[in-house]
Amino acid sequence: MKKLINDPERVVQEELEGIALAHPDLVKVHFNPNYIVRADAPIKGKVGIISGGGSGHEPMHGGFVGLGMLDAACPGAVFTSPTPDQMLEATKAVSGGAGVLHIVKNYTGDVMNFEMAADLAKAEGIEVESVVIDDDVAVKDSLYTAGRRGVGSTVLAEKLCGAAAEEGRSLKEVADVCRKVKDWGRSMGMALTSCAVPHVGKPTFDLPEDEMEIGIGIHGEPGRKRMKIKPADEIVEMLMEPIISDIPYKEGDEVILFVNGMGGTPLIELYIVYRKAYEIATKHGLKVVRNLIGPYITSLEMAGTSITMLKVDEDMIKLWDAPVKTAGLRWGI
Amino acid sequence: MKKLINDPERVVQEELEGIALAHPDLVKVHFNPNYIVRADAPIKGKVGIISGGGSGHEPMHGGFVGLGMLDAACPGAVFTSPTPDQMLEATKAVSGGAGVLHIVKNYTGDVMNFEMAADLAKAEGIEVESVVIDDDVAVKDSLYTAGRRGVGSTVLAEKLCGAAAEEGRSLKEVADVCRKVKDWGRSMGMALTSCAVPHVGKPTFDLPEDEMEIGIGIHGEPGRKRMKIKPADEIVEMLMEPIISDIPYKEGDEVILFVNGMGGTPLIELYIVYRKAYEIATKHGLKVVRNLIGPYITSLEMAGTSITMLKVDEDMIKLWDAPVKTAGLRWGI
Repeated sequence: MKKLINDPERVVQEELEGIALAHPDLVKVHFNPNYIVRADAPIKGKVGIISGGGSGHEPMHGGFVGLGMLDAACPGAVFTSPTPDQMLEATKAVSGGAGVLHIVKNYTGDVMNFEMAADLAKAEGIEVESVVIDDDVAVKDSLYTAGRRGVGSTVLAEKLCGAAAEEGRSLKEVADVCRKVKDWGRSMGMALTSCAVPHVGKPTFDLPEDEMEIGIGIHGEPGRKRMKIKPADEIVEMLMEPIISDIPYKEGDEVILFVNGMGGTPLIELYIVYRKAYEIATKHGLKVVRNLIGPYITSLEMAGTSITMLKVDEDMIKLWDAPVKTAGLRWGI
Repeated sequence: MKKLINDPERVVQEELEGIALAHPDLVKVHFNPNYIVRADAPIKGKVGIISGGGSGHEPMHGGFVGLGMLDAACPGAVFTSPTPDQMLEATKAVSGGAGVLHIVKNYTGDVMNFEMAADLAKAEGIEVESVVIDDDVAVKDSLYTAGRRGVGSTVLAEKLCGAAAEEGRSLKEVADVCRKVKDWGRSMGMALTSCAVPHVGKPTFDLPEDEMEIGIGIHGEPGRKRMKIKPADEIVEMLMEPIISDIPYKEGDEVILFVNGMGGTPLIELYIVYRKAYEIATKHGLKVVRNLIGPYITSLEMAGTSITMLKVDEDMIKLWDAPVKTAGLRWGI
């Protein structure tokens, strides 16, 4: 598969160099170990928030570092967990004395390394809470994960927790917001095409020209099933049904509806997906009060979409609306 | 090529329905004729700004309707010019008594239809100015265009003119900003893969697995040349050289550097492109004072990138920094 890169082994390094040149007002990029940190970190008295994971899902997480969202992000190699020393250094860099929250996507490597980093940080006297996001209803236990995978809810957790930390809440209170997102968010994705990891040089999987895969993971992990391509409305039904049957809601509940692009799917198609997802949510008595539409948690150049629905209360809506200033998400400032 | 759509003939209709459901706080969608208009239009005493063109370039233009940018956008069928009646109705819908600016990309159909719409609007007593953007240095005269094509500078023109109109400038003054962008902006693009128009159902052109096309148009029009794929840095040199040799600049001038994704290229690659483009601009004594990186003027699912460089003065930087609140671009509010 064709890519705009120089050296497959230097993709993340050169991407980080690009980010450093593009956004010096927002972030500093630290190399060896690699992490992206708010330009004004650490902020005294504010809870620090870090996340991280394999690269290839941009703008997540590095694009979400800035006021009102993450204090730092640790990018691993493409589709490869970052190391504990990256996470430890990032934790120390954002520690302003009020503790640090680790927002972790449920992938075995990420979970293990964030646990180790948290232990090391605690040993250095930094209070750490960790919340593992596991919102993907497609499959239980898969290629890289025990339990459900962590996907789209992570983006929403980073926004809401970032706002909570910004307004001065305690570590426990910020972690409570994250636990609410973990409990109240559900996601499911699908792919029309594979992606290709640069240093592998070939598609992660083969998908015939008339087939799609429902329930795919963001690294191309197998989903629920392959089948002939269907019209968008039927695909959206196949994604929304498992989400709605799993999410703890009652009629009249309010939700944020997030239609994500996998990287290779144009926006025009995401609005067609949103149209049907909104209709289905509404038919079930859910009130879509906010939305997010675009490529925010991607899988390199994979064509496809994922849908995330997060039940929200009044406080979470307020946190959603709060100012955010990052390369990947920005409003109110 | 695989798409998340229902009926190829209803792609734009359903996309517009999705936009209407997603952004009622920002825009109203008018059907038959189709246009997307600011929810609070017309604004008494403010210059109205409209643009439009074939669909398939999202978020341009519909995603740029809102405070500080466009007052309305007219989407044609995919890669097909909108009709004069769409443009006339949009012009009337945004006319607040201070005149209306038409920002037109240089494609023969767009230019012709906007001219006709302007004449009709003038006949109804609305003052109209039109500026035709023709910033693509790749080729002179191509498949759908006499002269240079209008591409990435259009996005920047919409932002700067929108800010100028928002602060109460006159029609002539807003059009002057647009003429500056036309004079001081240059672009060039390239493709790794083709796109496919939904109702055509097959790729617009064939590009072998080891080739790319330099100077491609946003509808897949032929560019300057095809060749074997090169490393990203060499590709960026091939795009930046014609831009820099054409742009009227002197050492020390300030520029906005816009690295655009064609729709199917992930963000991680755009930062690798930015890294080199920034280096080349800097080497030529240009000072990159602002940037924009992401898929803003796309060609459906085409993989590739375009680079736009716009020389700016102090006033233009101030207009760039002014608040904007649209689905596709937002800050400061």
